[in-house]
Amino acid sequence: MANIQVAFLLSLLMALTFCCLTFAVDPASLQDFCVADSNSQGFACLLIAVKLNGFACKNPAWVQANDFSFSGLHNPGNTGNPFGSAITPVTVAQIPALNTLGISLVRIDYAPWGVVVPHYHPRATEIITVIEGSLEVGFVTSNPDNRLISKTLQKGDVFVFPVGLVHFQRNVGHMNAVTISGLNSQNPGVITIGNAVFGSKPDISTDILAKAFQVDKNIVQQIQGKF
Amino acid sequence: MANIQVAFLLSLLMALTFCCLTFAVDPASLQDFCVADSNSQGFACLLIAVKLNGFACKNPAWVQANDFSFSGLHNPGNTGNPFGSAITPVTVAQIPALNTLGISLVRIDYAPWGVVVPHYHPRATEIITVIEGSLEVGFVTSNPDNRLISKTLQKGDVFVFPVGLVHFQRNVGHMNAVTISGLNSQNPGVITIGNAVFGSKPDISTDILAKAFQVDKNIVQQIQGKF
Amino acid sequence: MANIQVAFLLSLLMALTFCCLTFAVDPASLQDFCVADSNSQGFACLLIAVKLNGFACKNPAWVQANDFSFSGLHNPGNTGNPFGSAITPVTVAQIPALNTLGISLVRIDYAPWGVVVPHYHPRATEIITVIEGSLEVGFVTSNPDNRLISKTLQKGDVFVFPVGLVHFQRNVGHMNAVTISGLNSQNPGVITIGNAVFGSKPDISTDILAKAFQVDKNIVQQIQGKF
Amino acid sequence: MANIQVAFLLSLLMALTFCCLTFAVDPASLQDFCVADSNSQGFACLLIAVKLNGFACKNPAWVQANDFSFSGLHNPGNTGNPFGSAITPVTVAQIPALNTLGISLVRIDYAPWGVVVPHYHPRATEIITVIEGSLEVGFVTSNPDNRLISKTLQKGDVFVFPVGLVHFQRNVGHMNAVTISGLNSQNPGVITIGNAVFGSKPDISTDILAKAFQVDKNIVQQIQGKF
Amino acid sequence: MANIQVAFLLSLLMALTFCCLTFAVDPASLQDFCVADSNSQGFACLLIAVKLNGFACKNPAWVQANDFSFSGLHNPGNTGNPFGSAITPVTVAQIPALNTLGISLVRIDYAPWGVVVPHYHPRATEIITVIEGSLEVGFVTSNPDNRLISKTLQKGDVFVFPVGLVHFQRNVGHMNAVTISGLNSQNPGVITIGNAVFGSKPDISTDILAKAFQVDKNIVQQIQGKF
Amino acid sequence: MANIQVAFLLSLLMALTFCCLTFAVDPASLQDFCVADSNSQGFACLLIAVKLNGFACKNPAWVQANDFSFSGLHNPGNTGNPFGSAITPVTVAQIPALNTLGISLVRIDYAPWGVVVPHYHPRATEIITVIEGSLEVGFVTSNPDNRLISKTLQKGDVFVFPVGLVHFQRNVGHMNAVTISGLNSQNPGVITIGNAVFGSKPDISTDILAKAFQVDKNIVQQIQGKF
Repeated sequence: MANIQVAFLLSLLMALTFCCLTFAVDPASLQDFCVADSNSQGFACLLIAVKLNGFACKNPAWVQANDFSFSGLHNPGNTGNPFGSAITPVTVAQIPALNTLGISLVRIDYAPWGVVVPHYHPRATEIITVIEGSLEVGFVTSNPDNRLISKTLQKGDVFVFPVGLVHFQRNVGHMNAVTISGLNSQNPGVITIGNAVFGSKPDISTDILAKAFQVDKNIVQQIQGKF
Repeated sequence: MANIQVAFLLSLLMALTFCCLTFAVDPASLQDFCVADSNSQGFACLLIAVKLNGFACKNPAWVQANDFSFSGLHNPGNTGNPFGSAITPVTVAQIPALNTLGISLVRIDYAPWGVVVPHYHPRATEIITVIEGSLEVGFVTSNPDNRLISKTLQKGDVFVFPVGLVHFQRNVGHMNAVTISGLNSQNPGVITIGNAVFGSKPDISTDILAKAFQVDKNIVQQIQGKF
Repeated sequence: MANIQVAFLLSLLMALTFCCLTFAVDPASLQDFCVADSNSQGFACLLIAVKLNGFACKNPAWVQANDFSFSGLHNPGNTGNPFGSAITPVTVAQIPALNTLGISLVRIDYAPWGVVVPHYHPRATEIITVIEGSLEVGFVTSNPDNRLISKTLQKGDVFVFPVGLVHFQRNVGHMNAVTISGLNSQNPGVITIGNAVFGSKPDISTDILAKAFQVDKNIVQQIQGKF
Repeated sequence: MANIQVAFLLSLLMALTFCCLTFAVDPASLQDFCVADSNSQGFACLLIAVKLNGFACKNPAWVQANDFSFSGLHNPGNTGNPFGSAITPVTVAQIPALNTLGISLVRIDYAPWGVVVPHYHPRATEIITVIEGSLEVGFVTSNPDNRLISKTLQKGDVFVFPVGLVHFQRNVGHMNAVTISGLNSQNPGVITIGNAVFGSKPDISTDILAKAFQVDKNIVQQIQGKF
Repeated sequence: MANIQVAFLLSLLMALTFCCLTFAVDPASLQDFCVADSNSQGFACLLIAVKLNGFACKNPAWVQANDFSFSGLHNPGNTGNPFGSAITPVTVAQIPALNTLGISLVRIDYAPWGVVVPHYHPRATEIITVIEGSLEVGFVTSNPDNRLISKTLQKGDVFVFPVGLVHFQRNVGHMNAVTISGLNSQNPGVITIGNAVFGSKPDISTDILAKAFQVDKNIVQQIQGKF
Repeated sequence: MANIQVAFLLSLLMALTFCCLTFAVDPASLQDFCVADSNSQGFACLLIAVKLNGFACKNPAWVQANDFSFSGLHNPGNTGNPFGSAITPVTVAQIPALNTLGISLVRIDYAPWGVVVPHYHPRATEIITVIEGSLEVGFVTSNPDNRLISKTLQKGDVFVFPVGLVHFQRNVGHMNAVTISGLNSQNPGVITIGNAVFGSKPDISTDILAKAFQVDKNIVQQIQGKF
């Protein structure tokens, strides 16, 4: 009898584990808020967590002020990397209450001449303001115009990068620069052109990239090697 | 062995309970309907219910006509309270089939001179019609105009309170009045100004409210004492 | 003790089974994709699957290229039926990755003079193109105009059926015809007028249909008998 | 010279008239409200009115309480017609402030045994409540089930017809009946099955309808003749 | 003849002026961007501007980088007012390119003990970060709980005010404080409770407010007198 | 007098021309359809056309079946170009009735080994099916994984490219290949990585691109020279 029970429990566990999905909910709120439930990421996940489009909601009775907050956005990021920039995001991953609410912030630090290389956000427009320093910023419109709209921003300037368009920032001063941006998604997503095109895992065929950028395959391979 | 099993079952139950979230889905339907599943509120909830942005769907094969209906909207509410009004909502809490369908009804009864005090619905526009009696109704526009748009309604009149704006109703006759409203959310939410500002738990600092309403702190405390 | 355990397990199973809901998520993506998790349809369903407005997401780490694909749309459907047409859908039921992405395809084959009888899609506009043959197509506008907008299409022609409007297609050539359509929902839904009105289970009252179509009840019953 | 001027003015007028479009805006409000501007329907229309997806907004400074209201919903409609029912809609056509707000009401009167024949709303779910009398109501689910979900409602009962599904109402009492419904669109649209299928202008081919309803062409022609 | 022409031109002008509406478009972009066209506010407005739900788009060929930017967010606002706070918004009114893009920023300055009194945004969630100083912030949930969720924030802290909920901020330090917030609407709207309830034009009936706040009418009148 | 009139008319015309905007509406339909009005592109445009987020609607009474159709999708495109591919779109620019309906089609022809180089659609998911030939297709997920999900498709295979992700296609056979895709936007937009990054007008700073792709500036300049 006991053996049967153990077998039963094991199969129950296996079934539950097999079911281990992960939920995510949509931004159109149907209640005051839907704080993302972090339990869906832990051991309990083995039993019932299910991935959704967004996250499941914590029981509102258990919600605390801390679920709505994050600390440390005043701390400079570490710009000691090849790009000379550091990104500190505050999305639903940092503040679970952002789930279903459709907004996030990001702080970026730039060493002198540091760059945030061309990238785009598939799910958000970005509105950026310069807290310190001066920056060259720009974005490129879609086909067929591919017009570069750019500007040099000073402290206190604000600029907009429309959703889905490739954009970049560069510190054009000899001092560190800092920006804060708002983005209208709980999880804007980032697609860095270099990473997506030359650094995918596995690589996109050299032949395709050679045609795309109209260069020799060995230059493509040389760039792929860097990523 | 049995002890181990009991311990195992208890830990399983604890884990499952810990996981007890609650689902809620978004209003953009992806099937004919998604009747809210009431089991997610009972004992079974201990095992798998998860809170969502909305509710999980009952298996369509088990759906009955009763899931789409509610009885008793012809019954007068009890207006024997300080406001002289009574609210009978028909939202997703009363009709589970309203889940994901984005609409609800409400009946309101008003004793003579009864009032529905200033409040707003964060998720719905309200369209109200007078079944019996005559009412003064009004709403206030946002900053900076804060214009009051009001009207006295008679039987058969219809009026609109735009989403998110503060509004109120008052019976201006010597007889009972009755209204029926449609609201375009399965769960419109209600924020009564008095409750939110003077009756929150815990209280908002007296100092803040004294500044907000430009009155002495003791008047603020006096009002807070009533809620 | 063992009996208690068995009883406990059985009640656990019953509770879990009772809970067996089914999830479904909304089309506004909050991540790159949310591949529908097929496990929510199998035995595991007995334990935790929950029906949602859409589907739960497969763990992105387990996603494969096959989750994004379907094979066989070049195969003619079997038009050996009273309507002389065959429908091959490619919706979220065929490609789980379509979950939350809001699009689907359908291939339709038409025998000579084959018909797709009047129907509508409650959740999608359809854009159709003729791969082979020539077709008469049309749709009817809403009340009060009920205007028929129709056209005979040749190979390479494209036509649009707006969301929610009754439309039809008929092969007007002596050869087989083939069309491919895009529809902007992962699950457009199909409501065939004949089935919904004369073939519902149970039947709509003969009296109501006799009034609706202004015919004798026995004609209504005759038509109902065919469905 | 004068002739040239006249010619110029005439061509100017012609061009403007030719341009006479009509605007309509989307339900996601970007301000407190956007009262539909009725001037776009008058003479001025000759000069600049443009049809939109919705309507253009009246200058908010000119908005009046009357723009938010309608009178007469307590008046019975005239049920002296073959269906024995009368529909009194309160949509954006009756209350211009409903523009962009996504809701409307409708009153329906039913003579004894009066019917609202099978129809659907492509853009709204309907929540109906019985003010007087008793009604049989029902709707049919989409393919492949085509399940009829129906119920007899008494005074004070509420029922839901999900968006896009075919539904009907019938007075099953010997007295007049009255219902009020909320619908979550400023312009829900109505598609009456009989009108759309047998009463379109011009007619759908007899041949197609004969196949659709599996009846002789002369029965189809007989029904078409009634519409 | 000339008189006729002058009369004609005048009536043309009158008609055009009469038509002077103002356009506004919805946030779901259908192109890279839709920069709000400022001409609809000037003299040209007399001729064709029409108010919309949002704004009409500037011809993309005429768009400049300046349409995407704003300067001066580093400048402290003037907190010399009864509330001791100053608000510097950057919405579609300041950056026309924000039209249809669904995001905005705001800088707030707080004198020591300065307050942003209880208010809400009907169309946006706010994510706030403290640039300088320390602040008490809080929001209140909807009926029936009316729970106050509050926290004291330090420099670098981030907090979220969910859409439609009443919230406030207070400088709890002896130095000036500064915050920057992102809001997910091009035009979030602000409804200050005090202004809407006690400062509307015209006033809400004293009787209604006395009931709402359960105080004497003369206290209501005293508060109304301040606004 | 005549001179004054001429001057007046000229200034009127100038004002109107200055106003020459262009309307565009949002995809959430508020009527059966909103056929894009082509007059807003012609001479009449000088007088009243206004750019919108989408397009203004043609008067429904003037709508024709041709507004819903397009011919020629069976015609091979000309693949005699460096990429060996040709794109034939059917968007709102080709079928005005697609305005507000949220869908479009595209045919692509591929010469042997022809490539559609890496690109993305900011506003649409693409579902592609192979009509002739065999293709290698793939897309890359967002940061930080940048996983390439790819597959070789045969005739009759269907594949999905999620909205906003970089993807590509390559003919891997010795014969011509043909695909047809559905995209869930009336105007999906195309951003070709090469064009946006190396071919913008004006160029993005060589310095930024050298950092982005971790190559020498002269290689960047060499690539920029090709675009």
